[in-house]
Amino acid sequence: MHVLIVGAAGMIGRKLTQRLSAVPGLSDRPVSELTLVDVVQPPEPTGFLGKVNAVTADLAEPAAANAVLQGRPDLIFHLAAIVSGEAEADFDKGYRVNLDGTRALFEAIRTEGLQQPYKPRLIFTSSIAAFGAPFPDRIGDDFLAAPLTSYGTQKVMGELLVSDYSRRGFFDGIGIRLPTICIRPGLPNKAASGFFSNILREPLSGKEAVLPVSTETRHWFSSPRAAVGFLLHAAALDLELLGTRRILNLPGLSATVGEQIEALRRLAGESAVKLIRHEPDPVIEKIVAGWPRDFEPRRAAALGFKAESSMDEIIRAHIDDELGGRIGG
Amino acid sequence: MHVLIVGAAGMIGRKLTQRLSAVPGLSDRPVSELTLVDVVQPPEPTGFLGKVNAVTADLAEPAAANAVLQGRPDLIFHLAAIVSGEAEADFDKGYRVNLDGTRALFEAIRTEGLQQPYKPRLIFTSSIAAFGAPFPDRIGDDFLAAPLTSYGTQKVMGELLVSDYSRRGFFDGIGIRLPTICIRPGLPNKAASGFFSNILREPLSGKEAVLPVSTETRHWFSSPRAAVGFLLHAAALDLELLGTRRILNLPGLSATVGEQIEALRRLAGESAVKLIRHEPDPVIEKIVAGWPRDFEPRRAAALGFKAESSMDEIIRAHIDDELGGRIGG
Repeated sequence: MHVLIVGAAGMIGRKLTQRLSAVPGLSDRPVSELTLVDVVQPPEPTGFLGKVNAVTADLAEPAAANAVLQGRPDLIFHLAAIVSGEAEADFDKGYRVNLDGTRALFEAIRTEGLQQPYKPRLIFTSSIAAFGAPFPDRIGDDFLAAPLTSYGTQKVMGELLVSDYSRRGFFDGIGIRLPTICIRPGLPNKAASGFFSNILREPLSGKEAVLPVSTETRHWFSSPRAAVGFLLHAAALDLELLGTRRILNLPGLSATVGEQIEALRRLAGESAVKLIRHEPDPVIEKIVAGWPRDFEPRRAAALGFKAESSMDEIIRAHIDDELGGRIGG
Repeated sequence: MHVLIVGAAGMIGRKLTQRLSAVPGLSDRPVSELTLVDVVQPPEPTGFLGKVNAVTADLAEPAAANAVLQGRPDLIFHLAAIVSGEAEADFDKGYRVNLDGTRALFEAIRTEGLQQPYKPRLIFTSSIAAFGAPFPDRIGDDFLAAPLTSYGTQKVMGELLVSDYSRRGFFDGIGIRLPTICIRPGLPNKAASGFFSNILREPLSGKEAVLPVSTETRHWFSSPRAAVGFLLHAAALDLELLGTRRILNLPGLSATVGEQIEALRRLAGESAVKLIRHEPDPVIEKIVAGWPRDFEPRRAAALGFKAESSMDEIIRAHIDDELGGRIGG
């Protein structure tokens, strides 16, 4: 099986690449070829025995998507996106990459199929940024998408294309709305949601972190490990089961910041918790108030998608996957 | 006030043009200039004393939208669209006109504003084609958009742009999801929904009509007169009241085909009803089964949007507006 990952140099893209290099196969077919695409050179996986094509390309450029599809991959992960903060700061860039780039990829698949039958499986990562307040405490599968960011708008537009292109038979697609990834590895970033990871990741390495919101703030999480699990599950799922609604709210863990801190205390002790400095930031508090807190993702659960069931589990995944099992600076 | 109508040659566009020529003003400002745009030459209104610019243009062509905006209209009605059947038959054309044309118009507004402050009011006509089965008997304001046609997909993508461009302050927009228009004047057409109008319009003129579905089929209607009323109401509404959710399900009348026929009997007698020939068509029955039957449009009702409350009223609007008050062939 030939797998294409668009956005392969990103955090999830790199983890997915590494996992795909190690799995015996997907739906009983071995992964024989990986095409890795990103705007920066994607790192090649270690230990993979098949063929690897690492390509630097911007799909919003004319013909770039068609070139990437020349090898007619069987399975396509479309993870590439300008993130929320940047899409808000640079309106043109957000639409160019998140909407035009996505549409160019989908159109290239359709065009490929017009020449010779071709219907790959396509997995599109969307986000809970599809939702904007007001919403119920638990968002159900039938609740409207009403994004409050350009990023969320672009993601929902991509979802609509996934459903329409699938319905028309141009590809067999699924769009999955990922929870907020926690603990996001790497350096603290300025995303408004960054603190959810910072307040755990930094203390686990003996560093200080700032908490800009109240400990009662509730949000919807899954680990990077669970996110890769969602992608692999979507890759093997019988998509006929979705009917015409190709977009899923995924399972996650609903937890308050207070619960995050309690889990940190259990796993890393009071000294770690003391590294969190509470500095309320009204701007971030206001943004976060517009974010989903909890979901009732019945369809995805019935289809076998699984997330963590406790914050302890989410923190342990980080300790195992990023810190080699060890806590401390 | 300078008003631009994109899609001015269409059925609703022509009626709106004529109404705007006759109103004393909108929000206490007289209409002094009308720019009428369509891919075919839009007819000029009779009896209008202001300036009229009738323009033949395809907004999906480069720079066409910018040219149309040179006069910096205060109020823009964007009604232009490839209809459902054609967007399904010609994938490229549907996306080109309904998505690219819409986006080109919105981008032209934004670009105009980048040069010199400009924030017109924009009214976008969407459709109940935003919804696809399964759905509840009555669709509420929070129910998800899950279109089952490319036309519906393109309309929802346009809605998302309306909300995002409004949120960003590029224009002050509103998207209104019109019920199925009944009685649509003119010749019978091949749209799957055409029979809802045909079975009333044709008998009212002494002609036969074919009913392809059961009399228990329920659907959501408003007259062309009510549709123009919605547009004028949206033109005068304080859009701040919408908050960030700029898209509305509009009021309409939920009625069965049987109720349509009973109203026809009351207004035009048994001889008119006898002109309806029941010829079940399983293909049309299947399509119609996926269409909304009823809504609970609380937000729009609270904002003062009004539709007909009986099928008799809908038929009388047709007799008055299209038949000069007279029934019969």
